[in-house]
Amino acid sequence: MAEEIARNAHLASTVLKTLTDEQRSIALYKIKEGLLNSKEEILKANKIDLTNAIKQNLSESLIKRLDLSKNDKFESMCNGILDVSNLEDPLNKITLATKIDDDLTLYRLTCPVGVLLIIFESRPEVIANITALSIKSGNSAILKGGKESIETFKIMSKLINNILNNETEIPKNSIQLINSRNEVNDLLNQDKFIDLVIPRGSNDLVKFIKNNTKIPVLGHADGICSIYIDEFSNIDKVKRIIIDSKTNYPAGCNAVETLLINEKLLTTTNDNFEIILKSLIDVGVTCHLDSSLFKNNIPKSLQGNEKLVEAVDDDFNKEFLSLDIAIKSIKSVQDAILHINSHSSKHTDCIITEDKSTAEIFLKGIDSSGVYWNCSTRFADGFRYGFGTEVGISTNKIHSRGPVGLEGLVCYYYQLRGDGQIVGDYLGGGGTRVFKHEKLDINNIKL
Amino acid sequence: MAEEIARNAHLASTVLKTLTDEQRSIALYKIKEGLLNSKEEILKANKIDLTNAIKQNLSESLIKRLDLSKNDKFESMCNGILDVSNLEDPLNKITLATKIDDDLTLYRLTCPVGVLLIIFESRPEVIANITALSIKSGNSAILKGGKESIETFKIMSKLINNILNNETEIPKNSIQLINSRNEVNDLLNQDKFIDLVIPRGSNDLVKFIKNNTKIPVLGHADGICSIYIDEFSNIDKVKRIIIDSKTNYPAGCNAVETLLINEKLLTTTNDNFEIILKSLIDVGVTCHLDSSLFKNNIPKSLQGNEKLVEAVDDDFNKEFLSLDIAIKSIKSVQDAILHINSHSSKHTDCIITEDKSTAEIFLKGIDSSGVYWNCSTRFADGFRYGFGTEVGISTNKIHSRGPVGLEGLVCYYYQLRGDGQIVGDYLGGGGTRVFKHEKLDINNIKL
Repeated sequence: MAEEIARNAHLASTVLKTLTDEQRSIALYKIKEGLLNSKEEILKANKIDLTNAIKQNLSESLIKRLDLSKNDKFESMCNGILDVSNLEDPLNKITLATKIDDDLTLYRLTCPVGVLLIIFESRPEVIANITALSIKSGNSAILKGGKESIETFKIMSKLINNILNNETEIPKNSIQLINSRNEVNDLLNQDKFIDLVIPRGSNDLVKFIKNNTKIPVLGHADGICSIYIDEFSNIDKVKRIIIDSKTNYPAGCNAVETLLINEKLLTTTNDNFEIILKSLIDVGVTCHLDSSLFKNNIPKSLQGNEKLVEAVDDDFNKEFLSLDIAIKSIKSVQDAILHINSHSSKHTDCIITEDKSTAEIFLKGIDSSGVYWNCSTRFADGFRYGFGTEVGISTNKIHSRGPVGLEGLVCYYYQLRGDGQIVGDYLGGGGTRVFKHEKLDINNIKL
Repeated sequence: MAEEIARNAHLASTVLKTLTDEQRSIALYKIKEGLLNSKEEILKANKIDLTNAIKQNLSESLIKRLDLSKNDKFESMCNGILDVSNLEDPLNKITLATKIDDDLTLYRLTCPVGVLLIIFESRPEVIANITALSIKSGNSAILKGGKESIETFKIMSKLINNILNNETEIPKNSIQLINSRNEVNDLLNQDKFIDLVIPRGSNDLVKFIKNNTKIPVLGHADGICSIYIDEFSNIDKVKRIIIDSKTNYPAGCNAVETLLINEKLLTTTNDNFEIILKSLIDVGVTCHLDSSLFKNNIPKSLQGNEKLVEAVDDDFNKEFLSLDIAIKSIKSVQDAILHINSHSSKHTDCIITEDKSTAEIFLKGIDSSGVYWNCSTRFADGFRYGFGTEVGISTNKIHSRGPVGLEGLVCYYYQLRGDGQIVGDYLGGGGTRVFKHEKLDINNIKL
């Protein structure tokens, strides 16, 4: 069963990738129209999910996320499909061209990755978004959404497939929805057909998937983001940035979890540390101070404050996902880099300083997919980066890092166009001909 | 032990990546000088490896590969280091720049992957080449070479590390040589510190590694390359290309293993099939014909020829690595694409045709890292592609495909440079400011 789903997706992908941008973009337009025309039917299914969620006493925030009828959520979901369709075609871009010899030319072109297995949360609009990203990038996709939205997903997937099959040139099985977690487990073994797994969801889910498949996984388990406050920082910027990074959305993977403070800010002639702690306490943040700070540096006015607790070692490897933050003093920007490179999850880390040369050391030295200077870690997001939308945020070290938009769903291949050339004629292969290896201008190529 | 090696490599990598191109390139120059100055010492160690190899009755071709003293092999090894040092710096290239808002700018820059674990064959010159590629690309590397060259590797690694530590700014432990296969097995568990494994060597080695690590693996197990001979092919080009692809170096991963012949070439009014078979037989190739060809299409002049055998199904999924080839007739370019996409190892596949529109269908439809038109599959090689050198050939679908040079050893990260901006001020984060998202010209940026 899993093998059949995966093989069908693979077969679809080999046709899908040969379609033009126009064919792919028109399909998205049709999906948008079709979903708009079936609004009532979709909201009816969505109502069932909502009723079930209420029956099961699910959290208010989850129920809010499930509800597709509120405000203009349905319309903005449909418009989101059009936004993706209007993005620049990511495929068939020539990124390298070399004249190897007369009538023998090498081209490097962007192409889809192939087959994506995408596991995502219970937000009904995400299925439309991911479908759009997959088709636009020429990838076929196997989708599994959170079970709380199952009825909405089912009807939307049915509608999308009817539209694709009847009104577009997108091959059958380009978009397949699966319903059970068991199917996911079986699909994780289909490394012959599936090229990339993109899990969105809890840390445990992502870790489970990473540990149970040979297929490359694009995503992040933890988001352990740090901010280093330099000696030469502006205290107003410090306050704004740390409060926003911690409290704008504490459950976000781009929320800050660790604060490193230059030890010069702890001297008694200086009330910066007091200001920092107070501003955090004022908005309800519990500060986990490392032992030395806890024992020696709590300002008089804050002694005994219940929001100041002694940190345990593990707090510096922790994604709190709550109004908690681990705080440590540090000697220098170099030590901050060392700490972050060995404790962060390579998501997003920030320095606050007015000193450009210190900032440059930090920007170059940190090993993460996002390295920031004087701005909130919460900017780590595909929409904020201007990518239109994102399929997830990657903390991988290869292929695609940070917020992943269309570009992260493509790779490249080489075309070599000749006229009967053989290696035996050239130096190194037995012959005497010499390669020309002339770089060609990629902006002036007509294949 | 493995953890210490891996952690040290990681620590070195975080410094190495901050060095300038000049610092990295000077280091390569010093290595080249140092190796040249120690030629005698190295050849003495190499002699021990050679003597041992002869004692153990190792194959002549292996002994030839081990010998560093023949012709100008030593000098060209040293010059190869300089060639890499002269390549364009792959790091800190700005590949995207976006004005997110006033004084808030996003940059995407190339950076090293981090720590490489490279396992390679018993060719002494490869250690110099891989060291050069790693340092030039800012990656620290853990190296394990084939055991037959152990003495040569040991002395070269000692020399290289002495030079790096005493004469350059490259951090200690940037290049570490390990000697036993057991250490490799332990290192495969160090996914916290090692970012990429690059195995070169036998299919079994690569498969073992892929099955035994969570670290991304870049390389190829099989090289099952196919050539499709179209109806409108030029028979002279066909002969040249198939003979070169099969016999120029049959043990190479880019040698052809499967021949698909358009069925129109099998009609009796046409002697192309006979010419093809004869030309293969003449150079000693055994042709494994699929049952239908074997039973119905063997030309009279070749009936009973011992080089024509009936293929078994598995022959079409096989890397022969010998003077054998599997041959099948096929209806159309579309069927050839279907066959190749489900049987090839996504290495390199070729069409021979004089018809451009058929060639374009093939070039777009094949799923492999190299898709060729009218030239030998043997061109799949970093040197022939003009990359200067290669660290291996990748059949992966993500990150880096085909021959991997310096560019395959880098990835990218995002810098966001602000002046105190927070997400809470912007639409979507709770505020009202609108993102500008202006694309900046990446050629006119000074950070």
